[in-house]
Amino acid sequence: MAERKKVKLPSGFKDYLPEEERKRSEMLDAIKRNFELFGFVPLDTPGVEEEQTLTGGDPEFKKQIFKIKKSDESESLALRFDLTVPLARVVSMYPNEITFPFKRYQIGKVWRGERAQAGRFREFLQFDADVVGSGSLLADAEIVALMNQVMISLGFQNFLIKINNRKILGGLPNYVGFSKGKLDAVLRTVDKWDKIGIEGVLKELSSKNAAALSKNEARRVVDFFGIKASNNRELLRSARALISTDDAEAGFAEMEALIDHLASLGVPDDKWAFDFATVRGLAYYTGFVFETILTDLPEIGSVFSGGRYDNLVEHFGGGRLPAVGASVGVDRMLYAMEKLEVSFSSGKNMRAVVLHFDEGSLAAAERAVYELRKNGIPSEIYLGKEKTLKGQLAFAVKNNYAAAVLIGEREASAGTATIKDLKSYKQTEVAIEHVASSVKKILGGR
Amino acid sequence: MAERKKVKLPSGFKDYLPEEERKRSEMLDAIKRNFELFGFVPLDTPGVEEEQTLTGGDPEFKKQIFKIKKSDESESLALRFDLTVPLARVVSMYPNEITFPFKRYQIGKVWRGERAQAGRFREFLQFDADVVGSGSLLADAEIVALMNQVMISLGFQNFLIKINNRKILGGLPNYVGFSKGKLDAVLRTVDKWDKIGIEGVLKELSSKNAAALSKNEARRVVDFFGIKASNNRELLRSARALISTDDAEAGFAEMEALIDHLASLGVPDDKWAFDFATVRGLAYYTGFVFETILTDLPEIGSVFSGGRYDNLVEHFGGGRLPAVGASVGVDRMLYAMEKLEVSFSSGKNMRAVVLHFDEGSLAAAERAVYELRKNGIPSEIYLGKEKTLKGQLAFAVKNNYAAAVLIGEREASAGTATIKDLKSYKQTEVAIEHVASSVKKILGGR
Repeated sequence: MAERKKVKLPSGFKDYLPEEERKRSEMLDAIKRNFELFGFVPLDTPGVEEEQTLTGGDPEFKKQIFKIKKSDESESLALRFDLTVPLARVVSMYPNEITFPFKRYQIGKVWRGERAQAGRFREFLQFDADVVGSGSLLADAEIVALMNQVMISLGFQNFLIKINNRKILGGLPNYVGFSKGKLDAVLRTVDKWDKIGIEGVLKELSSKNAAALSKNEARRVVDFFGIKASNNRELLRSARALISTDDAEAGFAEMEALIDHLASLGVPDDKWAFDFATVRGLAYYTGFVFETILTDLPEIGSVFSGGRYDNLVEHFGGGRLPAVGASVGVDRMLYAMEKLEVSFSSGKNMRAVVLHFDEGSLAAAERAVYELRKNGIPSEIYLGKEKTLKGQLAFAVKNNYAAAVLIGEREASAGTATIKDLKSYKQTEVAIEHVASSVKKILGGR
Repeated sequence: MAERKKVKLPSGFKDYLPEEERKRSEMLDAIKRNFELFGFVPLDTPGVEEEQTLTGGDPEFKKQIFKIKKSDESESLALRFDLTVPLARVVSMYPNEITFPFKRYQIGKVWRGERAQAGRFREFLQFDADVVGSGSLLADAEIVALMNQVMISLGFQNFLIKINNRKILGGLPNYVGFSKGKLDAVLRTVDKWDKIGIEGVLKELSSKNAAALSKNEARRVVDFFGIKASNNRELLRSARALISTDDAEAGFAEMEALIDHLASLGVPDDKWAFDFATVRGLAYYTGFVFETILTDLPEIGSVFSGGRYDNLVEHFGGGRLPAVGASVGVDRMLYAMEKLEVSFSSGKNMRAVVLHFDEGSLAAAERAVYELRKNGIPSEIYLGKEKTLKGQLAFAVKNNYAAAVLIGEREASAGTATIKDLKSYKQTEVAIEHVASSVKKILGGR
């Protein structure tokens, strides 16, 4: 066997050790339950796809993917960079197995073949819910209702789902009077509003390095994005009075209808707001776009985002299918839950450990762990080398067990066990057949 | 945008469409709950690792991996081919975060960079539980108890955990009188016992293309593997009487002790058996090996296998740490559950769909789906284009909903909903606030 060098993790990749992984996994399970509550069904696709499927020959995508090197060069394979392209492939490949509208969710790793950068991962978990094959506004409303439900059920109270419609932004060049080609540059500047303020935006809009608008044009842009209103309907009215292009009008009508849908679906008024400055980076959105901001932690950006993309599925080979969906920012959401101490579960560690100190007590200790598990209490029996009570208790404390079950020589011969609450350090001795009920009392008291 | 070719899935890869993925996901969740019940904690590691970590420079491994091609050639990355090597890396990298014995489970995709073959996947899900850092026999017993618990809780009744100890096999050359170098060839032949019978084994053992034993040597091999006994203790006694090398004696002592541990941990006698012919392909096992066979479906082989590997962690850079673990054969287990119609859950589809037929009824329909979800019933509102009852019911039936909630013009104005049982086709009309309790009655009756 060859000698090993010191092992390491490549940069841009991350391990999730048990403490973090348990929290992440609980969060994902909770989100999954909500997706299923909303009628979404699970899908899984390989991490590896044909390069042609992923990029469609587009050089922009080619730069972003991890290609796979094989001795056999008859295939060109690569790692997926999102879950949307595989979704497009699936809806195109299985016309007989899938009924539309197709509501699917998928959790999976995706990879970005960029150079590793500080704070940017090259592998991360994506968690998407999409409705493919429905152009109905109700589908958009369902996505917002789902986002609201997920946030509430994870335990977040102070969040806001910001909603915009790309059609409004499409009407902006006509209203202001600049060429369509400048729209992206204008939106990039508007996106900095919170950071550089209204004066900063005005200045940058006129800059040669940005959209290079005239003073008057820049003013009109700021007038529009600066509209203040006390509620969503009033905001729509004010904006409609300013912009009256056909594009924008279609967007306004959709927004007006959405207000009613969200009310019927039980999404509280204070949990969402129209915001014309919500742009989303991805160019493929065609209608509504959604972002979820934590009002106590706005600096991390959106934790749950999405929108309508009526052309993307066709572009990636999936036929002419309108679609709308949303994606959980798994790492950001997890970070926010930690930071804001938000929790959907007790968050307590409800495990027990059986400690034992001599060969003769082993059978009794095994009986104890069997009883605990039979009663549904996650528990283990000490497997290490420490022979002393002190040494084994140190292990139990370091691993955050809630209760320890001690089986010494005396207990083994008496048919009892000593149950120790690892928080209060109180202990009681019970008959071995009562181990589970006794430990449950400790766990229940937490 | 470049024109798209017809998309396809590369050979050796597989999609899990919702019906199959739901079953797989439920199965994985059930297994996970049992792993946690036994005190295992979750770990996640990237799909991508340094090539050096994965192969240790061993050319055998190099042939099996998918390498990753990057423009920047300063790194050599590849896809992991199992979860054991990443475990070895983790225990070596985080000495301060991990306490030993470390009981972790991990679910994740792994890749084999072989040429695609019929029935062999190049990507599959691996699901492992391992105890690292305990040389105690109790840890081996815990793994067997876990295997038993998982099988029972998935709903399997007729299964057998076959247990062997590599140390016994290590004593075989001495006992028979052939050179150690022939052991692998001997075991490969013995492995065919069920297929070619005792005469076939005898013949092949003497063949020049196999182990080339003498007739007498072959006879002694067959004598050993053919020992019949009415129980595990008797089997041990008979085998011990035959082989008395030091190697084998250590193995026999471990097996004898295991019998008691399994009894204390509540593993029923009829669910496991010693079997000297259970070899396991992987050369890295050093002590006990385990295989789980379904007695109603023996031809698919083991669905849950493992063993002790005391040298592997060190070989892969993880320090001198004994380890024992087991791995679920996810695809085989899923296949067996289907084939044997084994189920741990009701297996019933407990979802409802709200149907609606005109714009004016939409708000009432949205109210209905809100009520259903508020009461924890997975449900959706029809998002397609069909406007007729017939068309929407066809969608509901095709998607296996248990109940449909119909909101027509009449219902919308009366504040009611018609609830249709999609099995019996019986229907009742209820006030809209009673939608959830009425649907629950249908779901409860299934």
